[in-house]
Amino acid sequence: MNSASSPARPPERSVKLAPSLLSCDFSRLGEELAVLGGEGGADWAHVDVMDGLFVPNLSFGLPILSAARRVSPLFMDVHLMIERPERLLRDFAGAGADGLTVHVEATAHIHRAVGQIKELGKRAGVTLNPGTPLEAVRPVLGDVDLVLVMSVNPGFGGQRFIPGSLERVRTLRRWLDEIGSAAELQVDGGVTPANARALADAGASCLVAGSAVYGPDGARAGLARLRAVLGEN
Amino acid sequence: MNSASSPARPPERSVKLAPSLLSCDFSRLGEELAVLGGEGGADWAHVDVMDGLFVPNLSFGLPILSAARRVSPLFMDVHLMIERPERLLRDFAGAGADGLTVHVEATAHIHRAVGQIKELGKRAGVTLNPGTPLEAVRPVLGDVDLVLVMSVNPGFGGQRFIPGSLERVRTLRRWLDEIGSAAELQVDGGVTPANARALADAGASCLVAGSAVYGPDGARAGLARLRAVLGEN
Amino acid sequence: MNSASSPARPPERSVKLAPSLLSCDFSRLGEELAVLGGEGGADWAHVDVMDGLFVPNLSFGLPILSAARRVSPLFMDVHLMIERPERLLRDFAGAGADGLTVHVEATAHIHRAVGQIKELGKRAGVTLNPGTPLEAVRPVLGDVDLVLVMSVNPGFGGQRFIPGSLERVRTLRRWLDEIGSAAELQVDGGVTPANARALADAGASCLVAGSAVYGPDGARAGLARLRAVLGEN
Amino acid sequence: MNSASSPARPPERSVKLAPSLLSCDFSRLGEELAVLGGEGGADWAHVDVMDGLFVPNLSFGLPILSAARRVSPLFMDVHLMIERPERLLRDFAGAGADGLTVHVEATAHIHRAVGQIKELGKRAGVTLNPGTPLEAVRPVLGDVDLVLVMSVNPGFGGQRFIPGSLERVRTLRRWLDEIGSAAELQVDGGVTPANARALADAGASCLVAGSAVYGPDGARAGLARLRAVLGEN
Amino acid sequence: MNSASSPARPPERSVKLAPSLLSCDFSRLGEELAVLGGEGGADWAHVDVMDGLFVPNLSFGLPILSAARRVSPLFMDVHLMIERPERLLRDFAGAGADGLTVHVEATAHIHRAVGQIKELGKRAGVTLNPGTPLEAVRPVLGDVDLVLVMSVNPGFGGQRFIPGSLERVRTLRRWLDEIGSAAELQVDGGVTPANARALADAGASCLVAGSAVYGPDGARAGLARLRAVLGEN
Amino acid sequence: MNSASSPARPPERSVKLAPSLLSCDFSRLGEELAVLGGEGGADWAHVDVMDGLFVPNLSFGLPILSAARRVSPLFMDVHLMIERPERLLRDFAGAGADGLTVHVEATAHIHRAVGQIKELGKRAGVTLNPGTPLEAVRPVLGDVDLVLVMSVNPGFGGQRFIPGSLERVRTLRRWLDEIGSAAELQVDGGVTPANARALADAGASCLVAGSAVYGPDGARAGLARLRAVLGEN
Repeated sequence: MNSASSPARPPERSVKLAPSLLSCDFSRLGEELAVLGGEGGADWAHVDVMDGLFVPNLSFGLPILSAARRVSPLFMDVHLMIERPERLLRDFAGAGADGLTVHVEATAHIHRAVGQIKELGKRAGVTLNPGTPLEAVRPVLGDVDLVLVMSVNPGFGGQRFIPGSLERVRTLRRWLDEIGSAAELQVDGGVTPANARALADAGASCLVAGSAVYGPDGARAGLARLRAVLGEN
Repeated sequence: MNSASSPARPPERSVKLAPSLLSCDFSRLGEELAVLGGEGGADWAHVDVMDGLFVPNLSFGLPILSAARRVSPLFMDVHLMIERPERLLRDFAGAGADGLTVHVEATAHIHRAVGQIKELGKRAGVTLNPGTPLEAVRPVLGDVDLVLVMSVNPGFGGQRFIPGSLERVRTLRRWLDEIGSAAELQVDGGVTPANARALADAGASCLVAGSAVYGPDGARAGLARLRAVLGEN
Repeated sequence: MNSASSPARPPERSVKLAPSLLSCDFSRLGEELAVLGGEGGADWAHVDVMDGLFVPNLSFGLPILSAARRVSPLFMDVHLMIERPERLLRDFAGAGADGLTVHVEATAHIHRAVGQIKELGKRAGVTLNPGTPLEAVRPVLGDVDLVLVMSVNPGFGGQRFIPGSLERVRTLRRWLDEIGSAAELQVDGGVTPANARALADAGASCLVAGSAVYGPDGARAGLARLRAVLGEN
Repeated sequence: MNSASSPARPPERSVKLAPSLLSCDFSRLGEELAVLGGEGGADWAHVDVMDGLFVPNLSFGLPILSAARRVSPLFMDVHLMIERPERLLRDFAGAGADGLTVHVEATAHIHRAVGQIKELGKRAGVTLNPGTPLEAVRPVLGDVDLVLVMSVNPGFGGQRFIPGSLERVRTLRRWLDEIGSAAELQVDGGVTPANARALADAGASCLVAGSAVYGPDGARAGLARLRAVLGEN
Repeated sequence: MNSASSPARPPERSVKLAPSLLSCDFSRLGEELAVLGGEGGADWAHVDVMDGLFVPNLSFGLPILSAARRVSPLFMDVHLMIERPERLLRDFAGAGADGLTVHVEATAHIHRAVGQIKELGKRAGVTLNPGTPLEAVRPVLGDVDLVLVMSVNPGFGGQRFIPGSLERVRTLRRWLDEIGSAAELQVDGGVTPANARALADAGASCLVAGSAVYGPDGARAGLARLRAVLGEN
Repeated sequence: MNSASSPARPPERSVKLAPSLLSCDFSRLGEELAVLGGEGGADWAHVDVMDGLFVPNLSFGLPILSAARRVSPLFMDVHLMIERPERLLRDFAGAGADGLTVHVEATAHIHRAVGQIKELGKRAGVTLNPGTPLEAVRPVLGDVDLVLVMSVNPGFGGQRFIPGSLERVRTLRRWLDEIGSAAELQVDGGVTPANARALADAGASCLVAGSAVYGPDGARAGLARLRAVLGEN
C-alpha cells in the first residue's frame, strides 16, 4: 500500500522530468539549480550518489546534497548507488533528500530499507540494474512511492539506452496498475527526445535526463525539447 | 628517495595553507575557488574524498574534482578517504588531481599505491589515522612527496584537535630530516590560529584548514588570520 | 525430494508451536526450557542466531545452543541469520541443532548449504527476507525439510506482522503441495492469537512466537492461548 | 540479440564436448591438450577458474590459461568462478580466453559484465548455481553467446549430477528458442555416458566432462564413449 | 590522559579477577553470576562477544549481556571480538556493559572507537592479538582505561598460555607507568594458578580466567586458588 | 622458538635457490620440475599462489601444486598471496606443500595461522609487503621457520628490485640472530646475479628467482649464474 502522501496521479498522466545533476556544471551548482527551477523548468532534481564500490564511480554525497537543498526548493530525488544503503539513509534524509531510491542488489534487506525511508518521512524508491529480473522488486511494489528502471548500467560511462528497457517499463506499469499503485515509474539512462514519447507511452511517469538536458543551448532548451515530444509544455 | 619534482623547501620554511573545500559553499564552488586563488589566498585547495565505507561520511569524488579543476588553477591536493584507493587512482589523476594522498589503513599495498601515483605523474602522499602508529608510514617515507598527519579522526563530525598530534608532527619532522626528505609535512584537523604557530614550529609545512578559514567574514580573512600567527603575509 | 526422515504430516494438519528463545529470560535458560518442554508445552525451541553482520543484531550462537541442548530434549530449531552460513554449519550441528535454517540472501550456494546440513544428519531449512521473491527458494523446495517465511524483517526490533506474509504462506503451501513435499512451512514474526488461525488456514504448519508466548502470565499460558485459537490443545 | 559472430546452430544440433582441464594431469598440460585437439578429440577446452572465495577451491588462473593458449588452437572456454569477475575480464581476455562465462551470483552488474566481454571481442557466457532460479539469467538471455547450467555445485568435490538439472536445461532451451537465440546451452557437472543422451535431448548443445573423459584408458576413449551415446562420431 | 573516572590504582597493586562467562553454564546464568558476586567472589564478569567473523566462533551478544546485567551488579567487562566494533558500541553500552574493549585489528579507526566508548560513559579498553606488535596500541595508551593482553589466540579452542605474553605484559606495564596511566592491565588466555603470580609480578592488574575458575569444585574454589597464589584473599 | 625440525644453519651459510614456478612453462610443468631437480639444480621450488583479491593477479592453487608434488621430490615452498589464508591452509598442506608462507596483511590472526601450519606438520613462513613495517612480523619471529622479504610488490608485473630491501634483510638477519633463530631468511622479487651476492651478504639464506633463472639458455644455466656470484657450485 502506498503512503498517504502519494497523491493519485492525474488522469492525463503528465510526465515528470528530472534532470540529473551529474551532468551539470558543479562549479556553479546554485545557478544550475536556479535554471532548473521555476516555470517551464524541471519537476525534480535527480541526484546520483555513487560510492565507488557498488558502482565503479565515486560521484558525490552528503555535502553536495546539502548545498543543493539550501539554495533550491526543487524536489530532491536521490538515487543511492551505494553498498548497504541502510547505513546512510538517516544522513541523506537529514541532508535534504525528498525521495530516496535504493538498489535491490545493494542490500539483503530491501523491505526494511524501504520501511526505514518511510519512517524518515521521505518518499521511498526501489531500483534494479538492467540485468536483474523485475521479479526482484515485486515483493515491495506495494510499499514504494517510486520504481526506477535503469535503462543503462549505473556508474559506467558512455552507454546507450538498452532497448529491452521499454518492455521492462511496460511490465512494471502493468504490475503497478494491477495493485492500484500510484507510485511513480521512473526511467534513467539514455533518455532522449527520440525515445521519451515511447517511454511515456509504455507507462513511465518520470524521466531522468542527463546529456539530453545539458546540451550546448542550456537546460531550459533541453527540457523544452523533451516536453515537446511528450506533448506537454 | 623523493621524485625529482619535489622542490627543496626554502630555508625560511614558509608554511602552505590548504583550505578544505569540504567547508566551502558547494552551491558556488567556482566563486569559492576564485576567492581562494590569487594574491594572499590559498596555496593549495584541499579536496576531501570520502566513500562512506572507509569513513562513515560520503562526501564527493570525481565530478566535483573535475569541476574544481576546470575553473581553478590551484594545486588540487586530494585526500582519499576510501577503501583500496588503488582502484581509483587513475580516475582521480585523470579528473585533475595534482597530489593524491592515501591511507595506510585502506590498503595492504601502500608501497605499490605510492608507486602508482608517481607513475601517473602526480605527487604522492601518505597518511594515517590518529590511532595508527607512525611506524606504519616509515617504510614509504623516502618515497612520498607528502605526509599527512590527521589531527582529528577523518570522516566524523564535530571533533577537536587531538593534542598528541603535535608530538606526531615533531617525530615525523625528525624522521624526514634524517633521510633528507623535502616532502611536505601536512596537518589536517582542528587547525586554528591558536595552534597553527605551534604546528609550524613542530615542523609542519602545510596546514589544512576548514572552519578556521570559512568563517563569517570570508575565506580571505580566515587565511589572513592564519598567516598572521604564522608571521607571514 | 524430501529426506526419508520427513514424516508425512498427519491429515488433521496440526500446527507446531516453536517459541523463540530470543524472548526468554536468559538468566534462567534451563528453567525457561523446562517450562517449554513436556505436556502442553512447545513442540520445538526456536533458536535465533544473529551475527551482527547479516542482521544488525548480535544475539547468540554456539555456547548458548550447547547449554540449551544439554538441559532440554526439545527439538532445537536453529535459524541462522549469519553471513555465509556454510562456514559454521558443522559447528552448529555439533553444538546440538536438530534443524538448521539458512537464508538465501546470505550465501551464493544455497543448494550446497542445504546439502551440507543433510550430510550432517540434520533437518535442512531455507528462508528468505520479506522483500525477497519467493522464486528465490523454489529451486531447493524439493530438497528441504522446512521453509521459513519471515513475516517481519529479521534482526530489527519493534516490528509488526507484515500483512502480505499471508499470501506468501499460501503460495508456498501450494508449491509444496504440488511437488508432494511434506516439508514444514514455518512462519516467524509478529505471530499472535489474532493471526495464528489465519496463518494455519493459509497452510503454515509451524508458528514461531516470541512476545505472544512470553507474556506476563508465563509461556504456558501464552502457548495455551495460541493453541486455543488453533483449535488444538 | 546475439552478436553477429554467433553462428546459427546446424539443424542436426550436434553436441559439442568440452573436457574440463581441471581433471587433466597438469604436469603435462601440453600433451593433454594435444590429445584433446585434432580429429575425434574435443570441441572446446573447458577452463575452470576458481579463486577460493566465490567457491572454496582455488584452482588456477591467468598463467595456466596463457600456457594452454600458447600450445593449443582449441577454443578456450573459460568459466570464472570468482568474485566480481568484472575486475579481471580484460586480463583473462588478454591471456587467451575465447569465451568467458560469469556467475550471476558473483556480481550485481551481470548485464554490464556480459557487455564488457563482448567489447573485448570474446563470446559471453552466463551461468548460475543449482540453487539459483533460472529467472536470474533471463534478463541477459538475449545478450549472451552461451548459458551454462551447473548440474553440480561448483567448487566442491565429490558430487553427483543433480537430477533436477535436466528440467532446467529443458526450460532454458525453450526460453532460448522463444527468442530465437542461437546461444550455446552448456551443462557442467557429473556428465557421463549415462546421462549425456538425455541432456542432449533436453536441449543441451555443449557438455562439459571431467572424470567421464579422463578415465584410465585416456581422454580419447572417454570422448568416444560420450560421442557414441550421442550418436555422433 | 585517562578519564577522570579512572581511580588511581592503590599502592599495593591488588589484582582483579574477572571470570569469563564463556566457561559458565549458560542454562543457569543467573546462579552462576550469583556465585561470582559478593564477598570472596569475582571482581568483574568478563563477557566474551564473538561474531563468527572476526574470530571463527560465534558466542553471544546483546541479549545475554542484558540478561546478565539485569540479575547481577557485577562490573560487566565486555570484550568485543567482532568486525568494525564501532557499529555496535552504542547497543552494547545500552545493554549494560560497564567497560568495552575493542581490537586494533578489527577497525581502521581505533582512536575514534575508544573516543566513542568514552562518550557513551563507559570505560574504554583496547586489545590486540598475540601476533600483533604492541606498537599498535601505543597511540591510544593515554586514552584508554584498560589494555588487554591476549595470551592465547581469541576465538580458537584448546589453546595454552603463550609464554611470550609475560614479556608483553612487562612492556605494557612499563609504557603505562611512563605516561602515568592508571589504566587496568588485563591478561586473558590460559591463566592458571601456575602463572597468575608471574603475571601479577610482570604488572598485570586484572586476570581473566576460564577453566581455572570453572573447575569441578565450583567457581568460588577456583577463585580462591587464584587469590591464594596472588597472596590475597 | 623454532620447531624441532628446523636444522641449525651450517656455519658456512650456504644460500638456497628457489626458482619460482610462476616463470616456468606451464604447458610442460613436469619437465620444468625435472630440470630444476637433481644435481646442480634448485634447492626448492617456489610456488606463488595468488587469488586475484589479496593481489590483483590470479595465478594458481591446489591442482597445480598437487601435480607438481606428484612428479617432483623438490621441497614445495608455497607463498600464499591470498585473503585470510587460514581458510585454505589444510587444503594446501594436503596438496603437497612442504612449507607455507602467509602475509601479515592478509589476516588478523598471524600467530594463529603460523600455529596452524605447524600443527599440520609443515614449515611455517611469514612475509610482508614492501610498505609494511618489519615490526609487523617481529611478534612471530620466534615461531616461524622462514621469513620472506618481498623486494617487489607481490602480484604486480614488471617491477624492479626495491633498493631499500637490502636494509630490511639486514635488520631481519640481526633480529633472527638475536633470538638465536635458525629460520630461513628468504628474498623474493627482482633477484639477479647483480644483487644476489649483496643479498647473501646482508643475511639472506634463500633467494627466490624468476626471470633470472628462466632465461633463454634454460633454468640450469640461470641457476649456475646465480651460484657463481654466490661463490657456490
